[in-house]
Amino acid sequence: MNLKMMLPSAVRPFRRRTGPGASPGTVVALPDEPPPQVRVIAYGPDGVVEEQAASVSGLAALTQRSAVTWVNVDGLGDAAVIQQLGNEFQLHPLALEDVMNPHQRPKVEAYDDHLFIVARSVSLDEHLETEQIALFVGKNYVLTIQEGLPGDCFDPVRERIRKTVGRIRHSGADYLAYALLDAIIDNYFPVLDRYGDMLDDLDEQLMSGGDGESVAQIHKLRSDLSALRRALRPHQEVFNELVREEQERFSERTRLYLRDCLDHVLQIAQTIDHYHEYCSDLRDYHLVTLSHRSNEAMKTLTVIATLFIPLSFVAGLYGMNFQHMPELHWVYGYPMALAIMASIGGSLLAWFWRRGWFRG
Amino acid sequence: MNLKMMLPSAVRPFRRRTGPGASPGTVVALPDEPPPQVRVIAYGPDGVVEEQAASVSGLAALTQRSAVTWVNVDGLGDAAVIQQLGNEFQLHPLALEDVMNPHQRPKVEAYDDHLFIVARSVSLDEHLETEQIALFVGKNYVLTIQEGLPGDCFDPVRERIRKTVGRIRHSGADYLAYALLDAIIDNYFPVLDRYGDMLDDLDEQLMSGGDGESVAQIHKLRSDLSALRRALRPHQEVFNELVREEQERFSERTRLYLRDCLDHVLQIAQTIDHYHEYCSDLRDYHLVTLSHRSNEAMKTLTVIATLFIPLSFVAGLYGMNFQHMPELHWVYGYPMALAIMASIGGSLLAWFWRRGWFRG
Amino acid sequence: MNLKMMLPSAVRPFRRRTGPGASPGTVVALPDEPPPQVRVIAYGPDGVVEEQAASVSGLAALTQRSAVTWVNVDGLGDAAVIQQLGNEFQLHPLALEDVMNPHQRPKVEAYDDHLFIVARSVSLDEHLETEQIALFVGKNYVLTIQEGLPGDCFDPVRERIRKTVGRIRHSGADYLAYALLDAIIDNYFPVLDRYGDMLDDLDEQLMSGGDGESVAQIHKLRSDLSALRRALRPHQEVFNELVREEQERFSERTRLYLRDCLDHVLQIAQTIDHYHEYCSDLRDYHLVTLSHRSNEAMKTLTVIATLFIPLSFVAGLYGMNFQHMPELHWVYGYPMALAIMASIGGSLLAWFWRRGWFRG
Amino acid sequence: MNLKMMLPSAVRPFRRRTGPGASPGTVVALPDEPPPQVRVIAYGPDGVVEEQAASVSGLAALTQRSAVTWVNVDGLGDAAVIQQLGNEFQLHPLALEDVMNPHQRPKVEAYDDHLFIVARSVSLDEHLETEQIALFVGKNYVLTIQEGLPGDCFDPVRERIRKTVGRIRHSGADYLAYALLDAIIDNYFPVLDRYGDMLDDLDEQLMSGGDGESVAQIHKLRSDLSALRRALRPHQEVFNELVREEQERFSERTRLYLRDCLDHVLQIAQTIDHYHEYCSDLRDYHLVTLSHRSNEAMKTLTVIATLFIPLSFVAGLYGMNFQHMPELHWVYGYPMALAIMASIGGSLLAWFWRRGWFRG
Amino acid sequence: MNLKMMLPSAVRPFRRRTGPGASPGTVVALPDEPPPQVRVIAYGPDGVVEEQAASVSGLAALTQRSAVTWVNVDGLGDAAVIQQLGNEFQLHPLALEDVMNPHQRPKVEAYDDHLFIVARSVSLDEHLETEQIALFVGKNYVLTIQEGLPGDCFDPVRERIRKTVGRIRHSGADYLAYALLDAIIDNYFPVLDRYGDMLDDLDEQLMSGGDGESVAQIHKLRSDLSALRRALRPHQEVFNELVREEQERFSERTRLYLRDCLDHVLQIAQTIDHYHEYCSDLRDYHLVTLSHRSNEAMKTLTVIATLFIPLSFVAGLYGMNFQHMPELHWVYGYPMALAIMASIGGSLLAWFWRRGWFRG
Repeated sequence: MNLKMMLPSAVRPFRRRTGPGASPGTVVALPDEPPPQVRVIAYGPDGVVEEQAASVSGLAALTQRSAVTWVNVDGLGDAAVIQQLGNEFQLHPLALEDVMNPHQRPKVEAYDDHLFIVARSVSLDEHLETEQIALFVGKNYVLTIQEGLPGDCFDPVRERIRKTVGRIRHSGADYLAYALLDAIIDNYFPVLDRYGDMLDDLDEQLMSGGDGESVAQIHKLRSDLSALRRALRPHQEVFNELVREEQERFSERTRLYLRDCLDHVLQIAQTIDHYHEYCSDLRDYHLVTLSHRSNEAMKTLTVIATLFIPLSFVAGLYGMNFQHMPELHWVYGYPMALAIMASIGGSLLAWFWRRGWFRG
Repeated sequence: MNLKMMLPSAVRPFRRRTGPGASPGTVVALPDEPPPQVRVIAYGPDGVVEEQAASVSGLAALTQRSAVTWVNVDGLGDAAVIQQLGNEFQLHPLALEDVMNPHQRPKVEAYDDHLFIVARSVSLDEHLETEQIALFVGKNYVLTIQEGLPGDCFDPVRERIRKTVGRIRHSGADYLAYALLDAIIDNYFPVLDRYGDMLDDLDEQLMSGGDGESVAQIHKLRSDLSALRRALRPHQEVFNELVREEQERFSERTRLYLRDCLDHVLQIAQTIDHYHEYCSDLRDYHLVTLSHRSNEAMKTLTVIATLFIPLSFVAGLYGMNFQHMPELHWVYGYPMALAIMASIGGSLLAWFWRRGWFRG
Repeated sequence: MNLKMMLPSAVRPFRRRTGPGASPGTVVALPDEPPPQVRVIAYGPDGVVEEQAASVSGLAALTQRSAVTWVNVDGLGDAAVIQQLGNEFQLHPLALEDVMNPHQRPKVEAYDDHLFIVARSVSLDEHLETEQIALFVGKNYVLTIQEGLPGDCFDPVRERIRKTVGRIRHSGADYLAYALLDAIIDNYFPVLDRYGDMLDDLDEQLMSGGDGESVAQIHKLRSDLSALRRALRPHQEVFNELVREEQERFSERTRLYLRDCLDHVLQIAQTIDHYHEYCSDLRDYHLVTLSHRSNEAMKTLTVIATLFIPLSFVAGLYGMNFQHMPELHWVYGYPMALAIMASIGGSLLAWFWRRGWFRG
Repeated sequence: MNLKMMLPSAVRPFRRRTGPGASPGTVVALPDEPPPQVRVIAYGPDGVVEEQAASVSGLAALTQRSAVTWVNVDGLGDAAVIQQLGNEFQLHPLALEDVMNPHQRPKVEAYDDHLFIVARSVSLDEHLETEQIALFVGKNYVLTIQEGLPGDCFDPVRERIRKTVGRIRHSGADYLAYALLDAIIDNYFPVLDRYGDMLDDLDEQLMSGGDGESVAQIHKLRSDLSALRRALRPHQEVFNELVREEQERFSERTRLYLRDCLDHVLQIAQTIDHYHEYCSDLRDYHLVTLSHRSNEAMKTLTVIATLFIPLSFVAGLYGMNFQHMPELHWVYGYPMALAIMASIGGSLLAWFWRRGWFRG
Repeated sequence: MNLKMMLPSAVRPFRRRTGPGASPGTVVALPDEPPPQVRVIAYGPDGVVEEQAASVSGLAALTQRSAVTWVNVDGLGDAAVIQQLGNEFQLHPLALEDVMNPHQRPKVEAYDDHLFIVARSVSLDEHLETEQIALFVGKNYVLTIQEGLPGDCFDPVRERIRKTVGRIRHSGADYLAYALLDAIIDNYFPVLDRYGDMLDDLDEQLMSGGDGESVAQIHKLRSDLSALRRALRPHQEVFNELVREEQERFSERTRLYLRDCLDHVLQIAQTIDHYHEYCSDLRDYHLVTLSHRSNEAMKTLTVIATLFIPLSFVAGLYGMNFQHMPELHWVYGYPMALAIMASIGGSLLAWFWRRGWFRG
């Protein structure tokens, strides 16, 4: 695994583009980002019209023609387009600034004639990426503005609009907003599953010993899970807000579905917390295991070295070349030396035995 | 203990079946699960009728005939049956989706004419298993849908219905719902007792030293206790909700019993927390013990090696074979060498003594 | 200290007797427990009557004759007696079940004509023991049911009733209940003091080095303090409840005393928390100390070994017995060897010095 | 630093004198404490009268004569005096008991005609000491009862009363109570500053390596900061209570000053928390540093020993005295042995190099 | 990095100047601080007047002439000037004392005719510095008093006032206060970015091993982040207070902007928490890595030493110079010794292999 590549998002989740002290509501384009792609789906019980909009002017007027109009903008590379969009739909400058600084915490802001929701979707290819998705929910339109990363978690919703004359086609903009939020949240499940698989692998690795690489992987996994948690956590407040709200924006029935969605958020949050804690547990477990193995190595070394070092000294003693060493000339000198060594070795072994060094 | 076998439930407590972006209320069967078994017990003060239902159609009508009817469905292997059951009892699609995704957090949802409760029972054979049990509590029926694992914690309740013309036979569906929830919660106690036994064993093992296996067992035990906690914890909210509720579903008298049940949940939660913390304590204790033993081994090694390595060097010095080594030819060369060694050894011992290395 | 003997209470604080799924309110006797001893003290401003009751029948009638009647039952060995007591005083079955499962969390339950309070007293002889004490507070009686451990913390209260015609004799059952609860709580202070002494000893031991035993003692002490905390903590809610309650059970004046008692609970809780944290601190301190000493031993060993191992090698080299080793025959071979050794040793020492190994 | 001397206060912050089960309101003298010294300052806009009172009788009457009377009692050595004082000022027995058990948590109790405040001042000479100060605030008097430690933090207040005809002389008893509480709280700042200095020193020590003493000092400092925190923390509730209170005891204007005082308490609490956490950080930092140095020593030892042990073995091999060792008689035996050694040493060095042991 | 230089602010964030027991509202000058510089900007939709005020007298009168007047005071070196300013604008003495003790926690105090706000700006040159900025917001003036560090985060606001006839020129004093607070908060972003860069560097360093310096840097970084958190955290309460306040000081519209500012505070707080936690993670990761490397070194040493020490002993044995050692004279003595060595070495290697020492 290329660990370095995956880190930036973990260390630096949120970076701001507008300079400090700038006038509030300043909209600055992201130069390296793709130019915005605008795609409109207008539908009702009777039919669906889908088109790629060349320009954003006239979009607001369009929303009058169908029961529900969904305008999806992909990419923040052109400040003028976003600004124009703001004028079209009369969006608040502060909301626009948030859209262009795609590192907001998910939140809900109620404006007079629309609700502004910031959500954050995740994807995990080579490394974990999060994408800010801004939703403006009006009377009969939903405007979504994505950062413009390739891929999108809304395709199943598009399919449901196109194919079936089901609940979504008979419901209003509030249900569409729910369906989009639900798609964003549901997309956390497969990502979480992949982290679960990695954890399983790591657990298995560590159970059979683990190596230096395992430690780095635990560290990496925890960082990613922290990033995931930071991305998900504020959605809890968002949905609590949406469910609580007594205003006209969400119908009673849709609110029931939103509560279900909140349940999913809680479940994901719990699982992330569990995985995160499990990473710490694995690290601690590995640390104790390492201590255990070091202790074992240390004991082996100590027993062997403590046993043989004195014996070798005795051997070295009688290996000295002094001319006048009476023991060397004794007939029983050699057996005596062996006896000395045996008795030293025996007493050391007995001492180790009594201290319990051979037990575990 | 086969640790690997026990892990999946610990790492991956909740996995979702419905794909992301699917329409809410989608009911997907679990292919590897057994087909649903439907068992009906209808009773009142006057008698008990018990039967295995071949089909779910007509079940709702059946509930009109007795004071209380308990329909128990075991197994989620056939989506059609569950769907049909939903139609029979007019259950909300979102509730049905929750039933089929058997990894919900325990919760209560109040619908117009029934209460939907998700609980989670535990069993510990070779490894810890949790099973989702969904309860629908209506005016005069209780519908329980289990995941279909072999075994069931409801047998004592069945016995009480069958044998005695006691409180349960004279009470309504709300008391039956309480009795079933109580049976689910009470079943945590023997599981907890077994973990208590394991902790006792581990504690004993570690007090007499412990080995590498002990560390893995602490890790495993903690994971299991985490899983147990995740399973139990949300019941607290469930019972708080049930006790609080002023509506018609639970009578004043039954609510008193539910409060008792909530007490048990709190007691179990406290014990789990205690066991969990005790595992961490054991791990930390073991870590300090290991450090202590490593330190002891290190000190033994250091004393012996530091003592003999210089002595051996002196012996090696006079073991060299140079022709011109005047000391070798001195009459008192050998005693001199011994004296040098004794003085080196003595000063090292004194130094160690002064540094307190022989004390603890 | 016999650590094993002290552990069961620490690991397994609460164990339940009634089987899972049993009908609520089931009263099961504790076979190994002593049979209940019933002792009645009836008093008022005018006098005190004290007797050992042979049977519980007629006790409720007795309470009509004096201003205050205190019935104290010691031991849970006979379910019939407790059941009869329940009938006499019309106690709720759930309360009786709690009495017989002496591992309840302390709590208050308000029934129509009596208040049910569960408290937990502690004693520390050879090991920490906790005893459940159930109090039923009626209009003019207090019924206390103890688990039946030898000893009792109520003797000072009995003395105050017998000897002085003071506040307690002029007050009602509510003041007696307060006096008994106060005696239970005050009994925590001497136990806490003994743990304080042990902590002082441990602290002293560790300051002068500590041994393997110290670690086990810290572990044991923490476990005991955890058990103590679990015993005490819920009393806080109990007294909060009693102080808050606006009903008729406790008079305004008595509630002032209860608030004082709550202050003591808070003070004890704070001290337990402090001791508990201090144990962790001692353990962490010991761990760092061990690391420090290991590091020191390691450095000593490394310096000596690194210094002499190369020197010994040189000595070994010229101790080889090859016939053709020109150096051995040189006149200055021996001084040369010594010079080589000195230069090796000197450079190593200089290297160590520069790396700061001799500093601390 | 004499660590042992400083510990008692840290381990044992609160010890109770009244025995368990004693009647509430029992006042027990502290035999080792100095006898109470009573000092009265009566003042108003017009003048100040200051005297040492020989007896406490008639003090209450005295409070009628001046605008404000401050009675300060120093020392708890005579229960009779405190009891008499209680009668004079009609203080509640429970309050008196609290005064005589000088280990109360700081708190506020509102009685009918006076407010009872327990505060805790700190001083740091050789070791940290805390002193309980009880304040009874009446309509036109303040009664302060100190434990009787030498020194007092009220001198600046006395000076302000004596010297200037400023705010304090024109204000009532409530402002005096504020001034005294403010003096108690302000006295935490210099103590905190000294701990800040010690932390700076420790930080410096550890940056340049640290020794075994440093670890003990961190441990000691943390204990002291814990004690300081336990002393300060409850004042937050005290001031919250005083600021909140709508009754007549504190005027609107004084409450503004009390809020300022609460700000100081928060600031001190934050700093203590920060210092406390910094101690833990230092300890953890030291632990990692120790691990780092042990690792370095270990690597040095391993490289040297692993390199020379095999070489020494080869030298030892050819140092054996067998008569029939052909190599010894070869002309190129010696160079061959050297070549073997060089090749062993070279490959080991290469292996170490490849494993990155020489890098850092 | 010069670590020592950066520490003081981390250890000692808040130090008080006024002595304990001083009369509240005492204003003490900071002798080492620069004398106050007063700069006035008065503006409205029609124009901007900017001047350096020589004296503070008459400033209050000046505020009547323009729509909004902003008086900025830089430096606390002259108590008289601050005192005079207080008289001019009728500021509360306690507020003035807070201004002169520039280590207040950020807070809001509402006085009758002005709002007193304490904020804290940060800058990171060679080390992290925080500066207290006091804001008095009146009906048509804002008075800011800075500690007087060189540099200032208000320049962008000055530019916006001077250059554009935009929102700020058409708004009241409340909007100016918002703009200044926003500038203070926005200034945390670049500081945070630099810490993010340092963390990235550290992460990279540790991934490739790390050295003793890395540990010190993590420690330093964490201290700085703690200081940053202590500086920022209370702003959350400040903005919550300002947003909540229903009074006349902030208009509905400005409150919308303040909510946006609160969002930024939350985002910064979250990022600081994340960085702080990441530091701990890095430290723990490094600790496990060190343990891993020590374990590896230990195993290498143990294998080599355990293998060769017994062999060397055998060699030493036959290197003894006893005259009567029969083995030395055997023809096959040498091969026998070699065989003994080979079998010892072989069995040890097999033992190591079976214990899994060569695996990871």
